[in-house]
Amino acid sequence: MMPASPIRKLVPYAEQAKKRGTTVYHLNIGQPDIPTPKPMIDAMHNLDLEVIAYSHSAGILSYREKMCEYYAKHNIDVTPDDIIVGAGASEAILFAVQSCLNPDDEIIIPEPFYANYNGFATSAGVKIKPITSTIESGFALPPIEDFEEAITPKTKAIMICNPNNPTGYLYSKEELEVLRKIVKKYDLFLFADEVYREFCYDGHTHYSVMNLEGIENNVVLFDSVSKRYSACGIRIGALVSKNKEVMQTAMKFAQARLSPPSLGQIAAEAAMDTPDSYFDEIISEYLARRNTVVEAMSKMDGVICPTPKGAFYVAPSLPIDDSDKFCQWLLEEFDYEGQTVMLAPATGFYATPGAGKQEVRISYVLNVENLKKAMKCIEEALKVYPGRK
Amino acid sequence: MMPASPIRKLVPYAEQAKKRGTTVYHLNIGQPDIPTPKPMIDAMHNLDLEVIAYSHSAGILSYREKMCEYYAKHNIDVTPDDIIVGAGASEAILFAVQSCLNPDDEIIIPEPFYANYNGFATSAGVKIKPITSTIESGFALPPIEDFEEAITPKTKAIMICNPNNPTGYLYSKEELEVLRKIVKKYDLFLFADEVYREFCYDGHTHYSVMNLEGIENNVVLFDSVSKRYSACGIRIGALVSKNKEVMQTAMKFAQARLSPPSLGQIAAEAAMDTPDSYFDEIISEYLARRNTVVEAMSKMDGVICPTPKGAFYVAPSLPIDDSDKFCQWLLEEFDYEGQTVMLAPATGFYATPGAGKQEVRISYVLNVENLKKAMKCIEEALKVYPGRK
Repeated sequence: MMPASPIRKLVPYAEQAKKRGTTVYHLNIGQPDIPTPKPMIDAMHNLDLEVIAYSHSAGILSYREKMCEYYAKHNIDVTPDDIIVGAGASEAILFAVQSCLNPDDEIIIPEPFYANYNGFATSAGVKIKPITSTIESGFALPPIEDFEEAITPKTKAIMICNPNNPTGYLYSKEELEVLRKIVKKYDLFLFADEVYREFCYDGHTHYSVMNLEGIENNVVLFDSVSKRYSACGIRIGALVSKNKEVMQTAMKFAQARLSPPSLGQIAAEAAMDTPDSYFDEIISEYLARRNTVVEAMSKMDGVICPTPKGAFYVAPSLPIDDSDKFCQWLLEEFDYEGQTVMLAPATGFYATPGAGKQEVRISYVLNVENLKKAMKCIEEALKVYPGRK
Repeated sequence: MMPASPIRKLVPYAEQAKKRGTTVYHLNIGQPDIPTPKPMIDAMHNLDLEVIAYSHSAGILSYREKMCEYYAKHNIDVTPDDIIVGAGASEAILFAVQSCLNPDDEIIIPEPFYANYNGFATSAGVKIKPITSTIESGFALPPIEDFEEAITPKTKAIMICNPNNPTGYLYSKEELEVLRKIVKKYDLFLFADEVYREFCYDGHTHYSVMNLEGIENNVVLFDSVSKRYSACGIRIGALVSKNKEVMQTAMKFAQARLSPPSLGQIAAEAAMDTPDSYFDEIISEYLARRNTVVEAMSKMDGVICPTPKGAFYVAPSLPIDDSDKFCQWLLEEFDYEGQTVMLAPATGFYATPGAGKQEVRISYVLNVENLKKAMKCIEEALKVYPGRK
């Protein structure tokens, strides 16, 4: 059965804090505050349809063609047949897990990992085998030996999120080459969630698993419009693979649910007309936010805060007994000048029991001014938290 | 693994027929040609959002509240907490099957049944046990003895579609009472797909499973905006139940995929402002279409065509050897004055191997004029089909 996530358990406490009149800075969610690009909103304002009909089960062809142009700009060479549009990356991941694995098969994922992967694994009846990446290495890819140790005859896939949610870690080409080797050696699937592809900082660029040579048939890419264009609500993601057999099986699941959302696809197709300057602005905004958070956190006593190169998350380690308790206490008992923060306990991002008790995830989805206030709250909170270590 | 449906296998033959210049009347699909109500399109034209954000995982509250008003008009008494909005009824059904059944559990469904139920069963790893309803009875509910025979310790649910896809059969209150008794006796879930609720003819009205007394905790309702408002592409359905435990578990699956489509929900909420006259017009249009099809089919030699009281499907029996072959032959080899029809072989709607070989499903989603031409095609085709019996 599916466990409730530690973040969701906190929601009633956040409600209570608000009822008491406390301002709660929400650093717990991946919902950006950035406006959705105008071409997407315009596409709805100019909607010219008599019937909002089912689309092709794989997605509207003209949208998939535009996606190919987008991927070509990122040096990823795909055709519309290599793409199935899903209701968010969520559905794409579920289709892939159901298509590539049988119940009881195993999938290796470096932890901490995006908590919702647990849901897809539960839905498909497969087992996640975590291997731990450490804050000391900045959450780099665990050594190849750890992968080899975790592989069993039931292992069918390795999954990564790059740039990573919840750590913000951006895998280097060298790390991806390590994965390439092990995937090839054991003939595993390599699942890669690349929904934060554009969000890379400090001059670093993203290297896609789609460009790893010799494992074209092993790679399955998950993508989404949600974060890229700050349009989480349109629920448009994609499953992308050169593996014809995988695509054929995934199409059966796609057909069983008839069609991805048509309105969202129309908006997503229009998103492709967003000028590149949109990303320039956003990246510099997120960079300023990341720097605000990392600088503030690093100055706090007993805090370890790596500087991530991607996404919009950081996962610092705090001098606390238990991140679940700390995050609840922040909402239930603490305020600083009438303000507090809601953080995501990292325990929900680990599959290993007991792991992540010192860590939290901070989503920098607020503006710099509010982030500064939120950082001040954390600083003051750590001074008085009864479970401080 | 999921089987490809007999309809989908026909798609390439339909493409070929069109390439030859043959007009193909599509009676194979459930995509209505009726315009989507203006309030839904207007809602998109007037979209006033800066960020298209995630909605609540159970769906936008104001939309669920409006749904309660809609249900109240149909004498169904529910609160927003009894509703989880899904990406179409498809997702709602999947959530229910995953929440109420474990892998290897069984679900009894009268056949013929909507082919996509097979997909949800495969996804959840549960087994469909069919019991056969016959064309001689007009596809009425099979006798209670058939249900009792099919029940095993693994049986967890009975599922119906009312009015029925593919037969158009409308279950009477008496038949639903039979189901009530057996559900109560064996403490099973009763799943009911009522997406065609409004489409009832000849003065008959729909009776919802939500009004069966004493089994409130057993009933799970599936609903959808797709057919009701001719808006299949918005992918907005719902799971509705008074069973708190089911809703709690289903919410975990809902949370794992974050949110149903926001744009579709905004359109669906606006749909509630559609005047009742919209349905009056549509029902009389569909009634004329049904009568066109049933009258024409009934006049053909060797054809048995019950007069269904609901939905927009009929499932006649034809004097043919094999409906898969016949439907393919219609597209591959036949034309009448440059026209032919695409029908759905009923084999895909039966789980019993070999069943449905004489039957086809006709969706009357074309206007009367085109339906008449399509009926003429079938009449002429049956005269020359080599596999005629």
